[in-house]
Amino acid sequence: MEPSCGSRGPGPAAAAVAAVLPAGGSGERLGGATPKQFCTVQGRPLVSYTVGAMERISWISHIIVVVSPENIEKMNSIVEKYGHKRVTIVRGGVTRHRSIFNGLKVFAENNFSNQLLQKPEVVIIHDAVRPFVEEDILSKVVMAAKDHGAAGAIRPLVSTVIASAADGFLDHSLERARYRASEMPQAFLFDIIYEAYQQCTDYDLDYGTECLHLALKYCKTNAKLVEGTADLWKVTYKRDLYAAESIIKGNLSQQVCIITNVKEDVAQVNFLLHESLKSRIKVEAVSVTLSKNDGQLQDIFSGQCYNFVCISDKKYAVEETQKLVDMLEKSNTPLLYPVVLISVHLDVSENTSCSIGMEELTRIKKFAREVKKKNILLYGILFQYKSAKEGQSQSTEEKDES
Amino acid sequence: MEPSCGSRGPGPAAAAVAAVLPAGGSGERLGGATPKQFCTVQGRPLVSYTVGAMERISWISHIIVVVSPENIEKMNSIVEKYGHKRVTIVRGGVTRHRSIFNGLKVFAENNFSNQLLQKPEVVIIHDAVRPFVEEDILSKVVMAAKDHGAAGAIRPLVSTVIASAADGFLDHSLERARYRASEMPQAFLFDIIYEAYQQCTDYDLDYGTECLHLALKYCKTNAKLVEGTADLWKVTYKRDLYAAESIIKGNLSQQVCIITNVKEDVAQVNFLLHESLKSRIKVEAVSVTLSKNDGQLQDIFSGQCYNFVCISDKKYAVEETQKLVDMLEKSNTPLLYPVVLISVHLDVSENTSCSIGMEELTRIKKFAREVKKKNILLYGILFQYKSAKEGQSQSTEEKDES
Repeated sequence: MEPSCGSRGPGPAAAAVAAVLPAGGSGERLGGATPKQFCTVQGRPLVSYTVGAMERISWISHIIVVVSPENIEKMNSIVEKYGHKRVTIVRGGVTRHRSIFNGLKVFAENNFSNQLLQKPEVVIIHDAVRPFVEEDILSKVVMAAKDHGAAGAIRPLVSTVIASAADGFLDHSLERARYRASEMPQAFLFDIIYEAYQQCTDYDLDYGTECLHLALKYCKTNAKLVEGTADLWKVTYKRDLYAAESIIKGNLSQQVCIITNVKEDVAQVNFLLHESLKSRIKVEAVSVTLSKNDGQLQDIFSGQCYNFVCISDKKYAVEETQKLVDMLEKSNTPLLYPVVLISVHLDVSENTSCSIGMEELTRIKKFAREVKKKNILLYGILFQYKSAKEGQSQSTEEKDES
Repeated sequence: MEPSCGSRGPGPAAAAVAAVLPAGGSGERLGGATPKQFCTVQGRPLVSYTVGAMERISWISHIIVVVSPENIEKMNSIVEKYGHKRVTIVRGGVTRHRSIFNGLKVFAENNFSNQLLQKPEVVIIHDAVRPFVEEDILSKVVMAAKDHGAAGAIRPLVSTVIASAADGFLDHSLERARYRASEMPQAFLFDIIYEAYQQCTDYDLDYGTECLHLALKYCKTNAKLVEGTADLWKVTYKRDLYAAESIIKGNLSQQVCIITNVKEDVAQVNFLLHESLKSRIKVEAVSVTLSKNDGQLQDIFSGQCYNFVCISDKKYAVEETQKLVDMLEKSNTPLLYPVVLISVHLDVSENTSCSIGMEELTRIKKFAREVKKKNILLYGILFQYKSAKEGQSQSTEEKDES
């Protein structure tokens, strides 16, 4: 079989590329009962992050998620809950190769699935437990697959690889510089990888792990190897879940939006906060009247920002906060990631009694407990200025450590 | 060279085992300026955790830490700050193998170091960036080295290993089941590994990575391979630092000590808290009079517990908390890990005014800021009971996110 050379445009053509995500693993190495692809990070299953990473790429027309029969219902509810589009769920086999083969059949065999999808020119194969895949590497492997029939991401080896003899002693060690770890994503001309799977022996299907090997063995296609970034690592052990959580939290904390009403004294606080934060993270500052249904705010809510600081000098901050929470919910922002909302209430009145501050704190606390269920982490900060020079502050936090 | 067979007792004999920790790496893969062994986790450099893991094992007589010349001073101050014993710092070479060789010379060449240490029967080689090494695996590789001359920990491969041709295309892939990742610790009869290093070529010293390979090549010693646990992984990328931090935090949070004074109503709270926590973590509950210099408390402070809940019904909780902080400091407990101290103040008086509560909160907050510098994270919780049935609580937190 001769690999057909596709068009060499600046990016993959639309509708010519599909993806298959094998997600049928049992996650034994993680040491828990839940397969790793269904383990939650920040409350959301890992597989949903990976599907999301694929969905963001407009030129991937279909995403096939292959899960074991007992998890089809679970996967259906994940697709529904997180609003995933372009996803087809397929019943997996007992091994990785059998699952991938099942995923490919959706494009080729009328009887296999409820719907026969349009056969793509190139198919990406990626693991459900590698959530941090970027468009750059996907584009590179797809273009290389178009040109050469097969391509895969590789990484340098972290440890030396050794061969052990049958008696448990060292046989020989491999020179680390000459070998690479084969990672995901990989991409293939559909006809090549499908042909390879059709020719596979049962031994291949039951004990093999490497798609590039099948393309080489059955279609004489030497895959192009593409150096990937460290992000491509596979969530394998429990520590990898910790790492994934820290990475996601780190990414989320790179951007903040400061919201104030249009009054001048508060806008000044907005300006100062913006100046002090902008060297470290991306800051967007808007002045709006919350009572109006502001289009500017809607745009921000539907973007990639999950952190908001709302500064107000009204006596009762809870009402303003309630409006913001309503708008956030309508935008579906808290669906994918926890939203952090810091409600700062500046109390500049001369004659404040302590009990009013405490009452306000208690109200915000109660409200914070309510909205936490909606994946919104609300922090209330109350600044009481007794005089212009001398400041006293009191804060209360409802904090989620998950 | 024939490996000499040591005694096969239940554990390695005292003073017969030393360890060499190469810590000369530049940490390029981490993407930061600080070499990974000096990156801090919970404020403490990674290498200190690894040295600590070795120090806990009584039958390791000497720990040689090999660092690059520019980091000798830094390593000296780490040894001093964290009170490490049995450590000798040695100047590293330009490659890993040259550094390990320098470490071994301390036991064999009079002129190399200020002091010639007693030559051990067995030497462990372990990475400074693998902090979670347990006595079990160290004992296994040492015993195997005594019997067979060389031994090393191995792990299953996470990814398939492939060989690439010079043109960047796949040459062949290795059958994953037949190969293993060579991890640390490794152990050798000293005479074998030292002989191997003496016979090494410059090419070996400059481009080699695998000590087991040297023992095989120059001393015909096939190392015994010992299956290690997942904990043995090497901190290589930034995500590994996140994972290490989560693991350390997780370990620290497995134990809590509840401290109350001897009065009956507070002891009851102690009992109830103990009951509700004991199914999840290890709970120790003590009732003491803090004004006495209590021996029971000193024992707990010098143990492995880093979380304390102190429950008091005195009006001014800060004084009691101050006493606890003093005792903690004297015990050196906060030196190695952050200590979490939750000071719970039960205010059962009928006639409390809000302002007194606020004052107490402000005092505890101020105190919390002070003791944070001493690696003690103080959280104050004030419970105000207006009546026996109806409760109102107010808490203030000084929280460290590091």
